[in-house]
Amino acid sequence: MVNYDREAVQRVLAQVAADGRDSLTAPEGKIVCDAYGISTPDEGLATDSEQAVELAERMGFPVVLKIVSPDILHKTEAGGVLVGIKDAAQVAHGFRTITANAKIYNPNAKIVGIQVQQMLPAGQEVIVGATTDQTFGKIVAFGLGGVLVEVLKDVTFRLAPTDREQALSMIDGIAAAEILRGVRGAEPADRDAIADLITRVSDLVGDFPQLSEVDLNPVLATPTGATAVDVRILVDAEAATEPYRFSQQEILAAMNRIMKPAAVAVIGASAEDGKIGNSVMKNLVSGGYRGEIYPINPKATEILDRKAFARIGDVPGDVDVAVFAIPAKFVPQALKEVGEKGVAGAILIPSGFGETGNHELQDEIVRIAREHQVRILGPNIYGYYYTPEHLSATFCTPYDVQGGVALSSQSGGIGMAILGFSRSAQMGVSAIVGVGNKADIDEDDLLTFFEHDDNTKLIAMHLEDLKDGRSFAETAKRVSKSKPVVVLKAGRTAQGAKAASSHTGALAGNDKVYDDILRQSGVIRAPGLNDMLEYARGVPLLPTPKGENVVIITGAGGSGVLLSDACVDNGLTLMSIPEDLDRSFREYIPPFGAAGNPVDITGGEPPSTYRNTIALGLADERVHALILGYWHTIVTPPMVFAELVVDVVEQYREHGIHKPVVASLSGDVEVEQAAEFLYRHGIVAYPYTTEKPVAVLGAKYRWAREAGLLEG
Amino acid sequence: MVNYDREAVQRVLAQVAADGRDSLTAPEGKIVCDAYGISTPDEGLATDSEQAVELAERMGFPVVLKIVSPDILHKTEAGGVLVGIKDAAQVAHGFRTITANAKIYNPNAKIVGIQVQQMLPAGQEVIVGATTDQTFGKIVAFGLGGVLVEVLKDVTFRLAPTDREQALSMIDGIAAAEILRGVRGAEPADRDAIADLITRVSDLVGDFPQLSEVDLNPVLATPTGATAVDVRILVDAEAATEPYRFSQQEILAAMNRIMKPAAVAVIGASAEDGKIGNSVMKNLVSGGYRGEIYPINPKATEILDRKAFARIGDVPGDVDVAVFAIPAKFVPQALKEVGEKGVAGAILIPSGFGETGNHELQDEIVRIAREHQVRILGPNIYGYYYTPEHLSATFCTPYDVQGGVALSSQSGGIGMAILGFSRSAQMGVSAIVGVGNKADIDEDDLLTFFEHDDNTKLIAMHLEDLKDGRSFAETAKRVSKSKPVVVLKAGRTAQGAKAASSHTGALAGNDKVYDDILRQSGVIRAPGLNDMLEYARGVPLLPTPKGENVVIITGAGGSGVLLSDACVDNGLTLMSIPEDLDRSFREYIPPFGAAGNPVDITGGEPPSTYRNTIALGLADERVHALILGYWHTIVTPPMVFAELVVDVVEQYREHGIHKPVVASLSGDVEVEQAAEFLYRHGIVAYPYTTEKPVAVLGAKYRWAREAGLLEG
Repeated sequence: MVNYDREAVQRVLAQVAADGRDSLTAPEGKIVCDAYGISTPDEGLATDSEQAVELAERMGFPVVLKIVSPDILHKTEAGGVLVGIKDAAQVAHGFRTITANAKIYNPNAKIVGIQVQQMLPAGQEVIVGATTDQTFGKIVAFGLGGVLVEVLKDVTFRLAPTDREQALSMIDGIAAAEILRGVRGAEPADRDAIADLITRVSDLVGDFPQLSEVDLNPVLATPTGATAVDVRILVDAEAATEPYRFSQQEILAAMNRIMKPAAVAVIGASAEDGKIGNSVMKNLVSGGYRGEIYPINPKATEILDRKAFARIGDVPGDVDVAVFAIPAKFVPQALKEVGEKGVAGAILIPSGFGETGNHELQDEIVRIAREHQVRILGPNIYGYYYTPEHLSATFCTPYDVQGGVALSSQSGGIGMAILGFSRSAQMGVSAIVGVGNKADIDEDDLLTFFEHDDNTKLIAMHLEDLKDGRSFAETAKRVSKSKPVVVLKAGRTAQGAKAASSHTGALAGNDKVYDDILRQSGVIRAPGLNDMLEYARGVPLLPTPKGENVVIITGAGGSGVLLSDACVDNGLTLMSIPEDLDRSFREYIPPFGAAGNPVDITGGEPPSTYRNTIALGLADERVHALILGYWHTIVTPPMVFAELVVDVVEQYREHGIHKPVVASLSGDVEVEQAAEFLYRHGIVAYPYTTEKPVAVLGAKYRWAREAGLLEG
Repeated sequence: MVNYDREAVQRVLAQVAADGRDSLTAPEGKIVCDAYGISTPDEGLATDSEQAVELAERMGFPVVLKIVSPDILHKTEAGGVLVGIKDAAQVAHGFRTITANAKIYNPNAKIVGIQVQQMLPAGQEVIVGATTDQTFGKIVAFGLGGVLVEVLKDVTFRLAPTDREQALSMIDGIAAAEILRGVRGAEPADRDAIADLITRVSDLVGDFPQLSEVDLNPVLATPTGATAVDVRILVDAEAATEPYRFSQQEILAAMNRIMKPAAVAVIGASAEDGKIGNSVMKNLVSGGYRGEIYPINPKATEILDRKAFARIGDVPGDVDVAVFAIPAKFVPQALKEVGEKGVAGAILIPSGFGETGNHELQDEIVRIAREHQVRILGPNIYGYYYTPEHLSATFCTPYDVQGGVALSSQSGGIGMAILGFSRSAQMGVSAIVGVGNKADIDEDDLLTFFEHDDNTKLIAMHLEDLKDGRSFAETAKRVSKSKPVVVLKAGRTAQGAKAASSHTGALAGNDKVYDDILRQSGVIRAPGLNDMLEYARGVPLLPTPKGENVVIITGAGGSGVLLSDACVDNGLTLMSIPEDLDRSFREYIPPFGAAGNPVDITGGEPPSTYRNTIALGLADERVHALILGYWHTIVTPPMVFAELVVDVVEQYREHGIHKPVVASLSGDVEVEQAAEFLYRHGIVAYPYTTEKPVAVLGAKYRWAREAGLLEG
């Protein structure tokens, strides 16, 4: 552990608190930096011009002069900074100029004095900072200084605490990273010094969470160090608060009862067609759920041949889940009764809570739920599905194609799109869950359950915000090591984010923060709804590649070019084919075909050419994934191609060789059937597009890379 | 016209030619700049240190010293530049240092002397240049100087000649454009001076096309001017050559005969199943072509009930088109005969030409074609379709869904994908044309024909390269004013471009050049194959919007957020809803729904709410386009939604109100049928995706904007 002088910081913060200030002065900032080993220029505070001259002469010219005032945060704007002061006369003159400027800028500003600062040698200006994000809590930021970060927004974020490796990844993670590596013969900046500075800032805000913002801007990065030239630190007691978090055990205990209930009650069950309480009953029954179903309705004795109870308290046995199909205003009372019954999960279908502005009612039900140790799903949801239990606790229609994909959505409309797509594609699903207003259960709880759920192989989530981004990031980082997590974050863009707030009352965070932190958590971020659905469908079917060497084998040179474009777009590496392998490929393809990569077997080749070259790619250990481009011809019709591909891939699977194979099919309408046949056999194939199959392979690779599953 | 001193440039170039040099010295560069009114710093050439001191004292300190040597182009690298020289002693010392450095860098370098240059005040470094692109010929480039252009490649291109307006669009067209507008209180750079400098460089290379490269780097852009600090000019006589171009009249005369032939001959027609010459015959006949069909085959008397001829010369009447279905080696002789017969177009299906490395054979047939005034389509193609004439001159299958979309592809595989997609989507097509090796007929010829073809409403082209990019850009600029031109440029990326060269022998140009120039030509660039096909299908169905005000009306808030994201991604503007319109919307939606934009009518609303709000959007003149988000409910099932939308849209169409309406449908599988129904009625609708409908609307807008069809 680094030896920090925490007491020095505490003293500064005590003074700031005593003064009722929310920011540190520059000298205070320097004390904090010194205490945490953050290098700053030699400097001193002068209260008159003689003192300023004396200080400047001590530290040596040139110097910088800066206003020191608790009331002036943007010094440059206030005319409060002069650089390149070369002699004593200039210092004296500068002192007077700055003081005058400050008085014009803010006549009421309390002026503490003028800071005289050593002027540093040339280097690259960078920004290092920490801030308190309302989704993720403490995060650190890094970017190039000056107009680059301001105009091009070339900046990157990580959750604090940030270790050295992460700090280095930040330095490499900006678009202009090359500048710090030294361009035009310039010496590279000292990456270690910058990384060290980032971790010190991260440690500082970790130790003192009331520091809401630490802004080192600029930091001068030279070949031999990194010095914080200007320091701005803000204090906010509320920045230290953290949301309530359940333990993993608590989450699993509740979620297991909710997802695999032995008994479900329907609060507001109804015999009347068209009522939500009727749809839920029907779906539970016709969906094939085999546990107990208890209709709760004071006015009925029987609903759908099930004995009805006036109140949940009347039910003889234990109840794990209560699905609410009653108006919002009746929810608090019913929730109390549900809690007293010892129910694990309240599935709140009704709307009329936070999403309509009724935050009080939502807060009230959360209070009741906590008190009775009931977890709430919703409110304002369509319900949820868990196919291994044949559970369709929803007012939509049942879904029964079992499989390994678990999906969740924050919006009902997106939930319906998930259901329709799944049914249309016959996608094997383990669960579809609506989280709606997320008054309680959120994506963390779902991730934790699905992590331990053997029926689930991949988790795909549509979300508009995260209640507790930090917890999500940490959970996703853990879960994604074993199962791919796909996230569609809506409200990505400024206009999108605006719509998000009007919809859920949730302020969407800066998208770059989401983007960096989701990536850091090993999440596959989907750019759109259809991408999320296609990744969910395809990624679990593909075996995990063992390395980065992708080979394109194509009958159509034109597809080869487009597939290559798609590889670059999706961060895939076209293998540089070794000479011996190239020779082997050439043995099977016509002399005017192109070996290399793409392997262009040319159009009009018989099935054997496809078969032989694909077999070569599967057999060669240096090849890790195959992308096939098919061109419809009379010699090799679509279904002949599809069947030979399945045959050769299965032959190698039998010998324990599992490589991801995707295919793009160009041809007349028969290619649609061929693509479906391939998909059913684990080869992710699409007609009329070179982009989609490569995007799914790219998603698989992004996950495998972050999960550390690729060799080398 | 600006008054340039062309003779001064001519004198310099004569000297360069006499010396056999391929570059200008710095003093020569300055003469050229002076002649074209390009501002450069005060400077002079010194051959000894005394002379250098004298020059420096004349122009005033500080000065810059630079090596002058025809053998040293990269001066900084050679240690040949010293800046900030402050007095006479430093000048003398600097002179010796630079000379010594240069001798170390290149002991054989001829050293002309040292250039002494006035050192300019602070400003933003930019780059202005002109180069000779092998696709587009003379192009001008603009970017920010230093690491920004080197590391971030933030640069933009235009075809030369470039007028003032285009030059200004370049200054605004870089990512970091804001920097020149003045950030952090800096004064803005003089945009007019930069634009002026760009046009002068453009004029210079226009007047002297043998200047293969003009590089002003850096140009110092200050609030009051733009001065070229360093000038590098390269000369290459070949840079002045331009490709052969047919006149518009020649193109139209030939293309009209080719696309609407009265008689077609099939060279190598065959009665034998499986032969290309048989497939072509069958497709001509069964496709319903009503002109004359002449099988040419020396060994047959009749093929498919048509009298066969031994040679095309034996055919009694005129022949407009000859489709070749014979091996490559027989093509030259047959082409001669075809030429002698006066055929307008030779459709060369056979492969075995440039694409297999046989460039000589390809050159030979082009020579024969030119001699006989035959235009060649291909070689190495699947043929072509023109549905208004029921013409399927191809070995694929006939296509008969008539409509306004004309498509072309450079690759046979992509052609098959076009055919399959079209058939699957029942897309109305006017033509599908394979251009293959483009030995002669290329996209220009097709564009020119389709421009005048009343059957064609939109042109979509897959291309890997352009033979004559300048001519394409100019043609596309003209055509796209009246008809949308969609281009899928393959080989976009480095890896993609590599595949392109191995496929067609065509070197794909720098993609940024393509991107800028295609945009400048009003072309809608499609990012991928599927996008090109969806744009082709959807864009002609949508009416042209009258302005930028897009309104989202959605039943699912979640879709609204994603649709907003998609709007930003596609450069669409969400209308800021005026208060009175907001009030009108609110009259129809529940109190907890969100007006604003998206208009969130909330789920569970009856058909009337959709109908009323959509009608409002159609009726209000300030709204220019609608994006609908549908959420499947029992209250408004998918087909009910689809029918009401068609009904209300058609009602307004009857009153002369035509606005583009697109829709995203979220729901169970019934939404697929609803989306198809909507599409058939001119509402571009998709299930399970929020991205695609907005992308198609975005494509329509991009075209309408460039074509100058939007008001305001």
